[in-house]
Amino acid sequence: MKRFLVPFFFYTLRAARGAAAPASLSELVAAAPAADWRTPDPGNLLDMDLPGGRVVIELAADFAPAHAARIRELARSGYFDGAAFVRSQDNFVVQWARPDGDPKKRTDLGKLNGEFSRALSPALKPAVLSDPDTYAPHVGFVNGFATGWDNGRIWLAHCYGMVGAGRNNDENSADASELYAVTGQSPRQLDHQITLVGKVLKGMELLSALPRGTGDLGFYKTAAEYTPITRVRLEADMLPAERAKLQVLRTEGTTFQQIIAFRRFHSDAFYHQAVGHIGLCNLVVPVRPAP
Amino acid sequence: MKRFLVPFFFYTLRAARGAAAPASLSELVAAAPAADWRTPDPGNLLDMDLPGGRVVIELAADFAPAHAARIRELARSGYFDGAAFVRSQDNFVVQWARPDGDPKKRTDLGKLNGEFSRALSPALKPAVLSDPDTYAPHVGFVNGFATGWDNGRIWLAHCYGMVGAGRNNDENSADASELYAVTGQSPRQLDHQITLVGKVLKGMELLSALPRGTGDLGFYKTAAEYTPITRVRLEADMLPAERAKLQVLRTEGTTFQQIIAFRRFHSDAFYHQAVGHIGLCNLVVPVRPAP
Repeated sequence: MKRFLVPFFFYTLRAARGAAAPASLSELVAAAPAADWRTPDPGNLLDMDLPGGRVVIELAADFAPAHAARIRELARSGYFDGAAFVRSQDNFVVQWARPDGDPKKRTDLGKLNGEFSRALSPALKPAVLSDPDTYAPHVGFVNGFATGWDNGRIWLAHCYGMVGAGRNNDENSADASELYAVTGQSPRQLDHQITLVGKVLKGMELLSALPRGTGDLGFYKTAAEYTPITRVRLEADMLPAERAKLQVLRTEGTTFQQIIAFRRFHSDAFYHQAVGHIGLCNLVVPVRPAP
Repeated sequence: MKRFLVPFFFYTLRAARGAAAPASLSELVAAAPAADWRTPDPGNLLDMDLPGGRVVIELAADFAPAHAARIRELARSGYFDGAAFVRSQDNFVVQWARPDGDPKKRTDLGKLNGEFSRALSPALKPAVLSDPDTYAPHVGFVNGFATGWDNGRIWLAHCYGMVGAGRNNDENSADASELYAVTGQSPRQLDHQITLVGKVLKGMELLSALPRGTGDLGFYKTAAEYTPITRVRLEADMLPAERAKLQVLRTEGTTFQQIIAFRRFHSDAFYHQAVGHIGLCNLVVPVRPAP
């Protein structure tokens, strides 16, 4: 069996790069000092249980504080327990909600103003990518999130695994009761058009492999096709032993800089030409079980 | 139910754009003159039957003639009938082959030289995209395929749905008996590193939703997890009535130029800010059943 497409964690650097160079990206990550890992705030972690396993989402409270607060409130009230995946559109998104007709569906939630971008403060210190990006003048990572920025504003980018809050045409019509996750090519045209509220840290494969809906926009035509959500809890409300216990590599750390260089370089035995570029949505921020 | 993420075919242009503007991308495509559609050569169409339905692949014979010839030969010999999907790596690729241990697996096929790029001849006339691309100095579409070019060479881009030929570290080690399709964020770092041989025109949702393999690189750990391929035929060898009968919008035509402008503009009721950009792998070339 040809293994051929050797992905992120299996590159082998050419010996010519010298003894100090890591032999693979996985070695590089494994060698990261403890200080290069962060433990996300349990108040920003949502554990969503599906029949197939658990999905863990980190809320982007620094970018969408009002949406994060609403989502915490909904999770704490048990609103998402018994909700369902109602949509899976190929090469685009999955979406979850209380389905239409569900007696527990709330339509009285206040609308939230869009949180499409925020001020670019010096404290954010993005890890800057140097290659051109199609959609933003400047791109890089802030606290683990892919971002674009310009003119003193910074926004989250619609990369694979990002979670957003559905809205109607009115830009301030989201109520955070219907959420989506990106499962296809990054739909960057939606950047600073819809509020992104977080990112899937674990369990994307449970969302991305959901059968595609055959209705318009990938909505399922029948309730029988829905994938149920058993429950959604904020980790802050869970006993420590029940939590997912994940750590995320700090994107402001040295190891992440090495990963950027490694991915741009790509000069291993498989690559017969130098690549020399890395795209914002092609970089994956490592996540690991807490040691 | 919020519909919210209004994708390619459901945009409504602001009335301010005037009566001549199409109300939606679907209207624009529907209004395309017959001359803007092409019927692919049946000698370049592979119909791959899975238990869930049919996948149709157009071979990129202009870019990878030797690989296309080998794949035609393998299909005609029935080589892929009874092959299987042996790998599904989240946010990356699915791969199909005769599994290791399959007595019908051929290991005697001659290796093919990589067909990573070709001369950029004036006859190719790419539909040029004007936004910056992270991986290539110039990008656009040629005969329906997303491409990058520079210094007189042009190559296919690893966008969603592209099909390539697995190889080992030796750049000339592919034999076209193991193929993959991109199911995640476009892995553009593989452009002109691996030979791309074609593109899925229909049935991507059958590939992208395959359960992810839990072995290294997304390989399935057991044969019980494989999805079988019933048969693969070249449409040239099928009765006309059995063929998929698809047409592809000409990317060198006027309608495709309108689609590019439409997607860059995105000034509809949903978009509260102009987008003004469109990425190579964010443009989808329309495919329709022949009228």
